[in-house]
Formats: sequence, structure tokens, C-alpha cells
Amino acid sequence: MFRTHTCGELNINDVNKNISLAGWVQTIRKFGSITFVDLRDRYGITQLLFSESLNEKLEANPLGREFVLQVSGVVNERSSKNPNMPTGEIEILVSDFTILNKSITPPFTIQDDTDGGDELRMKYRFLDLRRQAVKKNLELRYAVGRSTRNFLHEQQFMDIETPFLIKSTPEGARDFVVPSRMNAGQFYALPQSPQTFKQLLMVSGYDRYYQIVKCFRDEDLRADRQPEFTQIDCEMSFVDQEDILNMFENLVKRIFKDVKNIDYIESVERITWEEAMWNFGNDKPDIRFDMKLCNLKFPSHTFPTKADISSLISGVDFKVFDESETVIALAAPGCSEYTRKQTDELTEWVKRPQIGMKGLVYIKCNLDGTFKSSVDKFYSEEKLKAIAEATGAQPGDMIFIVEGAEERTRKAASELRLHLAQQLGKRNPEVFKLLWVLDFPLFEYAEDDNRWVARHHPFTSPKPSDIDTMINNNPVIDNPSAYLKHPYANIKANAYDMVLNGNEIGGGSIRIFQKELQQKMFAALGMDEHEQQHKFGFLLGAFEYGAPPHGGIAFGFDRLCSILGGSESIRDFIAFPKNNSGRDVMIDAPSTIDDKQFDELQIKLDLKD
Amino acid sequence: MFRTHTCGELNINDVNKNISLAGWVQTIRKFGSITFVDLRDRYGITQLLFSESLNEKLEANPLGREFVLQVSGVVNERSSKNPNMPTGEIEILVSDFTILNKSITPPFTIQDDTDGGDELRMKYRFLDLRRQAVKKNLELRYAVGRSTRNFLHEQQFMDIETPFLIKSTPEGARDFVVPSRMNAGQFYALPQSPQTFKQLLMVSGYDRYYQIVKCFRDEDLRADRQPEFTQIDCEMSFVDQEDILNMFENLVKRIFKDVKNIDYIESVERITWEEAMWNFGNDKPDIRFDMKLCNLKFPSHTFPTKADISSLISGVDFKVFDESETVIALAAPGCSEYTRKQTDELTEWVKRPQIGMKGLVYIKCNLDGTFKSSVDKFYSEEKLKAIAEATGAQPGDMIFIVEGAEERTRKAASELRLHLAQQLGKRNPEVFKLLWVLDFPLFEYAEDDNRWVARHHPFTSPKPSDIDTMINNNPVIDNPSAYLKHPYANIKANAYDMVLNGNEIGGGSIRIFQKELQQKMFAALGMDEHEQQHKFGFLLGAFEYGAPPHGGIAFGFDRLCSILGGSESIRDFIAFPKNNSGRDVMIDAPSTIDDKQFDELQIKLDLKD
Repeated sequence: MFRTHTCGELNINDVNKNISLAGWVQTIRKFGSITFVDLRDRYGITQLLFSESLNEKLEANPLGREFVLQVSGVVNERSSKNPNMPTGEIEILVSDFTILNKSITPPFTIQDDTDGGDELRMKYRFLDLRRQAVKKNLELRYAVGRSTRNFLHEQQFMDIETPFLIKSTPEGARDFVVPSRMNAGQFYALPQSPQTFKQLLMVSGYDRYYQIVKCFRDEDLRADRQPEFTQIDCEMSFVDQEDILNMFENLVKRIFKDVKNIDYIESVERITWEEAMWNFGNDKPDIRFDMKLCNLKFPSHTFPTKADISSLISGVDFKVFDESETVIALAAPGCSEYTRKQTDELTEWVKRPQIGMKGLVYIKCNLDGTFKSSVDKFYSEEKLKAIAEATGAQPGDMIFIVEGAEERTRKAASELRLHLAQQLGKRNPEVFKLLWVLDFPLFEYAEDDNRWVARHHPFTSPKPSDIDTMINNNPVIDNPSAYLKHPYANIKANAYDMVLNGNEIGGGSIRIFQKELQQKMFAALGMDEHEQQHKFGFLLGAFEYGAPPHGGIAFGFDRLCSILGGSESIRDFIAFPKNNSGRDVMIDAPSTIDDKQFDELQIKLDLKD
Repeated sequence: MFRTHTCGELNINDVNKNISLAGWVQTIRKFGSITFVDLRDRYGITQLLFSESLNEKLEANPLGREFVLQVSGVVNERSSKNPNMPTGEIEILVSDFTILNKSITPPFTIQDDTDGGDELRMKYRFLDLRRQAVKKNLELRYAVGRSTRNFLHEQQFMDIETPFLIKSTPEGARDFVVPSRMNAGQFYALPQSPQTFKQLLMVSGYDRYYQIVKCFRDEDLRADRQPEFTQIDCEMSFVDQEDILNMFENLVKRIFKDVKNIDYIESVERITWEEAMWNFGNDKPDIRFDMKLCNLKFPSHTFPTKADISSLISGVDFKVFDESETVIALAAPGCSEYTRKQTDELTEWVKRPQIGMKGLVYIKCNLDGTFKSSVDKFYSEEKLKAIAEATGAQPGDMIFIVEGAEERTRKAASELRLHLAQQLGKRNPEVFKLLWVLDFPLFEYAEDDNRWVARHHPFTSPKPSDIDTMINNNPVIDNPSAYLKHPYANIKANAYDMVLNGNEIGGGSIRIFQKELQQKMFAALGMDEHEQQHKFGFLLGAFEYGAPPHGGIAFGFDRLCSILGGSESIRDFIAFPKNNSGRDVMIDAPSTIDDKQFDELQIKLDLKD
């Protein structure tokens, strides 16, 4: 036994106890003939006092930063107490010590405000993990997992493991594949998700399944993606969408309570995909603040049910708006006094290539009810007032307007909304606001192949009211330029995303459970019967033996943890993450393999220059 | 909402309630104008009564086995109650029903005593999983996992995920590898265990880690191996062997209590590896029964400290024993009246190629104190008595003796012991007996390469008393035939196995945590400095920055579940297992991949004929 206590637990009630501790040397301070050492372990920090009698031993065995130390001694009341730490009222009067292991000087300081850069900290991740900030992230991750398991257990979900060595059925993302030695010439794939297996479990009658499980996607990594990531994966039988929404908003509320001690008692807001796109310009709106978009002008086919208010901006010979496909305004609350410098900065911001606008029109809504705009030349005070009314702007607000092609402009308006909210302090990471986004389109149009692709995945059911449309129409798109007029373009999915603070944290759907409908879906995605059988024959087969109605959801565990932890980066919440090239720079993987391995697997390299 | 209740919960207290259920049609029985249906779901079976009024609808919508059915109705008290099922006192008087999905006739019956063969059940695993017997196994598995997590949580262990895409460092078993598209020509490996990562977590100060985690080994599959399997993987810092043994025998006791309601209050027995080999002929003895081996003759180098009692069998000119390297006896209690047919059968059994003995000598210990043996020609009554005393045989026992080369004979004696115990009903799967096996040799001799290999793995620490022997001796074996005389042959490991009913369910060790000793270990295993750096540079590096003393253990989760479930086969406890060729016959994996995948991965096949 190396210790009687940990470095986080001794306090004033333990005074005079004989104890032993083990941990890492955080700091060493000498005061004349006595030495103070802060000893650190996972649980906290305890101050050690080496009195003069140990000086000889200390000289023979000098301590250093990050040395592993075992001490025995007596708990003492401190003369100068530190009320900020649980052990701050005591110190250990050391009677003896052993250096269990030494340390060379770490390449960066083991502190919250470390001097180590990203790359260095990744290479020495085992040291970075010692930092309190990173430890707190992993503790939060563990707490989220534990809370999830407890809730789902109480709801009679069963954790059932699905296989990792499965079949490659690339559809959307690329699979990682694994050559099979015993079946030469053949490959396993690592699962992108346990989707088909959890559906089979429903066919098997396991009615409430979950797993916290690693998934794999071989995609080019954007800033915050990982080739391996973790999902909270769930599926239920004999449920409709409403059952799923209720169950899983309660899961997230439980996590809020257990992990953040937040009572999220209000019901979770719901919005359709169309309303999200209309009001916020994207399908995962941050609704911690309002600032809805005002669609001054839009192509009629994109939102066929919405009223056209473009007369508000037309008829004044302002060519920029007249020639634009889309004009979107939003009111920034309390920003009417923005300086020229500030509006110039915003203009530059929207002109960056990532946003891609040509400029930014503004309208000041002065507190006295007057208006001042960058387009005064074209718009009368009255016209400006009408626009302001349409945007819902109040005196004291500033209206910003972007224009251009539909998709890009909508995206820009959405980004601008977030950017302004950030500036205005409306994106407090300690405020949490959930949102269900519903009624997604079932299909997206793939221009390159002139065909439909599944927006969620090929197992998602259409809305019951759209099933006939799907079955009774030919999926072939005869007129590519008018694909939006194809009946399939309007089919809505029984799919739902959960959004937290502007991030999609989970998504799922009610599944197709009828063989014929599933075949129709595969066909709509351009899979012929042979391909259907080759890739998903087992699922179509299973649907012949009494498949129950079912649906599910998967949460991005890494993302959920990072948002709960108030961070933008999932990497901070993964013990051993990979970099943007998919490399683990600590262990230096991937790496070359031996000739013997190639030989046994019966594969060889085929490198392009 | 498809149901108000499940098929396992309604009982006499619910009579007259209006309810709805959903599930699968288990059986249909017609009695005149009424129809009884047993409706099954995950939770149980409820009897449905379709009265005459529904006959018209039933005729238009005929039911079949495994149809998915939704019914609404009223809970009725049954006239003929079934006390063997929780819902046996009631039935549902059906008012309306909906066929949610149909089923074609399953290829085998969904019953405990199914008529389906192994292969058929694997192909239709989603139907096999419907069987009560399989469901109970998965429920037990979930319960074991849950119990494990709860215990480890209470003991302040943290579940921390380690990566699946790591580096290939084949050492012992073969790695599965994953070609990297983004790093062409390089490969990830799937982890055989999270060993080095959990050690790094100890270096990082996370002092109590666990994971229930998939691991991968590309080995030729013996009957009961799987290419992917699950471990309960644990590691602790600032512990010695005693701490680990205490912690994890308490884990297993907790699992016994939670899952089987068994109070395993006695302390877990401990035995050294040497004593296990001596007394039981193998390192995972089943100690639910005694029947120790009696080593009548053995090569002096194998058990140097044991007394030679070969004079008991020598000096009578019985050439078979005189010329044998090893002679081992064991007494089968109460078997003295075995018939000639029975002993003949046993003789044939030991002569099978898997056992490989040339024959079986027996000595009957008659109840009257006399002896009768198959070697009466050579051994006097007095001699037989002395042998019987050495074996500890009692009147009424039968002594069996095998002889031959050391290793094979010891293995045969061990197998014979288990075989006899099985015949004698001493291997009751509902009796559980734990055992720690300690003090394994650190090294094994690899004849082919004339070098040492790590018996456990290269990170296992020698016993503290053996560290000097390891450091101060050259690992090179100058004289292969006398390798047992090399100082390394006697170095003991700080390693331990947990054995349950003759199965190794867990194993672990105290780890090396000093860089120099780890380097010495790698060198002893034939790794030069370059290879050490290439494969394990990150670990050697980490040991420079204050690595704490640490150790851990990993339990074979599949195996543990199968033994607790009273089964010999782990496959029965895995939702989607693979067959002996590593194939998933249900989804037909592994399989070929597309040219595009080869192209992107920059690899090609290199098939031998």
C-alpha cells in the first residue's frame, strides 16, 4: 500500500493523524531551512512541509518538478490557511519520504495556463492530460456517460454490443476497411454507425437498445472532426416520433441535471426544418437569442408557402437588390450607435471568402424614430421605416442586409447572425438552449449524378402522409433543372435533429420497417436489385420475418461533452485525439507495417506518385 | 403510442383495465369460434382472446406465427390459470387489432428447444436472438456490465476511452491493420488491448481507469475464440499486487451478488503457478473438486524443489515406467467398482490424438483395503499400497496413472482429471469457485528463435527480488539445451490470473514503470534500440516524466459471462458472433470492396494461388 489517503481529502478534521500520500511534485519552495512542496494527484493538492531534520536526506535525494513522491507524516493545522482549496487548512509534517520515480523537465508547464503550444501538447499528450483543465474535461465526459447509462437503464434500455468488423457498404461517407487474412482478398469495414445492427435488434425484439460506441469515418478532416468518434446510439420499437422526442429530451435534461446541476424544466422547443431555414438560415439554429432573419426577397420555389414582400425594396431603381436572387435582413439589437469603424469591420467580415458577400447594407434605427442608412440615396425615410417594421427592428437597433445567390446569401445571413450575437455577448457557453428540428426533406438532389441521395440515411421513413407519393412516383429526374418540381423533392422525412446552442448534438429518424418500402428507397437512391441484395440483403431478409415499427437517435458524444464543457473543440474532450491528418503524433500512427504482414494479408502497396 | 403496457407486466391487479399491447404472435389456437393467441415481446408473453365478433376481421386479416400485432382490449381474469408465468392469471379480451407487419414462416422454431442447426441460426441470427435462451444470455451480459460499472464507479475508477486506430506493434498475436488513405502507404492497427494507453493514463495521473472495450486479434480461430472480443480493462496507480487482488476479487464477488444473487463471502484461494502445475497439471485449475495429481516421477529440472518419490515405482523392472520421463497418478474417488468397459473407455479416451497417451494404468483400491491393478505383474500389494498412500487414495477409489514425456503427460493428467470430474458430476456449472494463480515465470523460452518471450506481456514487472537478476545478467542463451539453467528461466513475474471453475477469466500484472528496466525487458525479448524506439518510443519517453508505480488487470468479458451463464461457449453470449473462419454469415462479411476503394487506399491485392 503506497498511501493511506489521496491528495484531495485531508482537512482540519484529520489533524494529528499519521498518514501517507503519493503523488507528483507540483512546486517546491524553500524558506530558510524548511521546504514546502505541493503534492498533486488526481484528487487534489496537499501541502507538504519538510523540516530541517530532513535536509540531509533531501540533499542526497533532491526533488524536482513532476517527481513521483511518497511521503509519510502527520497532519498539521496550517498557520496561513488557503480557503480556496479543500486541503487548504492543513499541511503534512513529513517524517519520511521516498522518491518513487524521477522526471526530466517537462517540455511545458503542467498548469491551466500552460506555455505549451498545440503540437507540443499533442506529442506529449500524457503530460497534457495531467493539466487540471484537461482532467476536468475527461471527468465531465465520464459524468455524461454515467448519467446517460443510468437514465437509459432506468428506462429499460439494454446495452448490447454490435460488431466492429462488418461489411463495407459505402453510402455517403467512406469506410475504413480491414483486410481479412483468413479470407484473402476480402475486407471487413469498421462501422460508420451500428445502424443496421440496431435495426436487426429491433427485429429481434430487443425493443430498447443503446450503446456508447466508437464509430469510424474515413473523411478528410475538417477542423473539428475525428476519424474515430463516439456515439450514444439508441433505438426503440413500437414508437412514433413523439415517443422518441419525449424520451430523449428527458435524457438530455437528465444529463444537464446530473452533470451541470441545471434544472431544464421548460419543454424543448420544436421547429420545422423549413422554418429553421427561413428564420435562421440554417438547420441548427442557436436560439439562445432571437434576431430572426427577414427574407426581403427569395426565389419563389424555395419557400413556396411564404409571402413575397420584395415590394418593400423594389421600385426605387436600386439595382443591387433588383438584380439579386435573395435579400436577407436582420436587426442587431441596440447597435444603432455602431461607429463607421465597426460597420466597416462587419463589411470586411462578410466580404471574406468564407462568407463571400459583396457588401453589407445597413439601416440605423435611431432612438428618436428616424433612420439613416447606407442606401439613403435610394430609400426614403418611409421606405426604410417599412423595411425596419418587416425586420421587427426597434429604435436603437441596426439592420444589416446581405444579398446575392440564395444558398450563399442565406448561409452568410446565418453566419452574420451568429457573429453579431457573439459580439453582443448573447452566446454565453453557460446558458443552454435545446431545440428539436423536425420535418427534414427525405431526399437531397445530387447534381453530379442527377439522382436523389438520402438526407439522413437510406433507412429513414418518409412521413406517413408522403409514403404514397414515394411509392407511386418514378424517382428518375427527367428534367434536372426543374428537380425541385419532382414529387420527391417535397417528401418529408420522419427525422429529427436535436440542437444545442447552435450545434447538432443528435439526430435520428423513424425507420422504414416494410421490405417493399425499403426496396423502393434503395431504388430511389439508384441501387439496383443486385446491389441491394449484395449490400443489404440481410436487412431486407430480416424485414420479411415480422419487423416492428421502430426508430432511434444517435448523439455525438464528443460534441455533446464539448458543449457542456463550454468548449468549441471536441479534441479537448478526447483522451487521445488525432490531428487533422488523422495522425496520432504521440504514438506516431499510422505507420509502415512489416513485409510479413503484407505477405500474410496478401495485399501490396500501389502508391501513386 | 403503440402500447400502454408490455407483454410481461399485466396481472390480476389489472383486471378490467383498458390496455393496448404490441408484440409477436407466438402461437395461435382455435377453439370453436374463439381464438387464443400468445403475444410475445421482450418482457414476456400475454394470452389474447379473440371472441367470435372478431372472426370476420380475422378472416380478412389472417394471423400467422411471428406476425407483429397490435391489440387493444380489456384485461380479463382467466378461467384456467397458469401459475408458471407472471401474466398467467389474466388474458386480454381483444376489442380490436392491427397487423403491423407480416412474417413468412421462420426457418426454425422460435423456442428454447429450437429445431434450427448452428449454421442456420447464425445466418438468421436476428431470429435466433428472439429465442428466450439467447435473450437471457444477453440480459445476463448486460447485467454483468452494469454491475461492473457500478462497482468500479463506487471505487472511483473512471471510464476513459482509448483509441481504436493505433499503431501496429505485433508482439505475440497478429494485428488487424487498417490502411490509411490520408497517409498513403501507412496503416493503423486495431488494438489487441489498450495496454500502453492505460499505462500512459497512469503516467498522466488518472490513477483508477477502466473500460469495457472491444479488442482485436487476428489469430486462427480455435473453437471458442472470436477475432473481436470484449475486455473489462482496468489499471491502478500506487498499488502493489495485494491491492489489486483485493480490489478485483471484490469486483467479481459483487458481480456474483448482483447477477446471480450469490454471496461469495469466503476469501479467494491463492496458489502459485508452480503449485498449480504440480498439483493440477495446468495453470487454471478447476478447484471445485480436489483430485490432486501425484507426481510419481518427473524430470528434476522442472520442479527442482520437490521431493523425488520415483522409488515408489522403480526397481520392479516395469520398463514402461522406468523408461518414462514423467509418471503421474490421480485417485478418482469412489470409482473402484468401475467395470472393465469403463476403464477400457477411459483408456481409449487417453489414447485419442488430442490426449496422446499410450495407455492407462489403473489401481483399484478395494473397500476391504486390498488392491488390484493392471500392473499386478510388477507391483506387489505392498508397493501398490505405498503408491496409493502417495496419491492420497481412499478405499473405494480408483487410481489412474499416465506416463510419457513431461509436458504432454502433465497435460494429459490434467485433462483426465477434468474428464473424470465431469463424469463424477463434480463440475456443476451452478457452483462457482474462484482462484488466484500467482508467481508466473516472467519469461518463456522460444525454441525456434532461441530467445525469451514474455509470458504475460513485455510490460510486466519481475518480482522485486528478481529485478537484480534481470538487470545483472545477459539475456543471451548460449546453450539452448540448458536454457532452464539460464538465470532468466527462474525469474518470477509480478503477474496474476483469476481462474473461475477451471477457466482463466482475468489476468494482469504489476507493470514496469522505470525506463531502464523497460529497456532491459525489451532487449531481453530481442528488440534492439531502434526497434524499441520505433514501436514503444512514446512509452519509454513517458517513463522519463514521473511514471508512478502501477498495475492492472483485464477480464475476458465474453468468457466471464458465459461461465456465469453456465455455458461453455462464448458465442452464445455475443449478439452477433463470427464463425470459425472469422465470417459473419448473416451479413456476409468480410467481402470484396470496390476498385474505387483500392484506388483511394493505394493498395492492391497480391493473392497467392
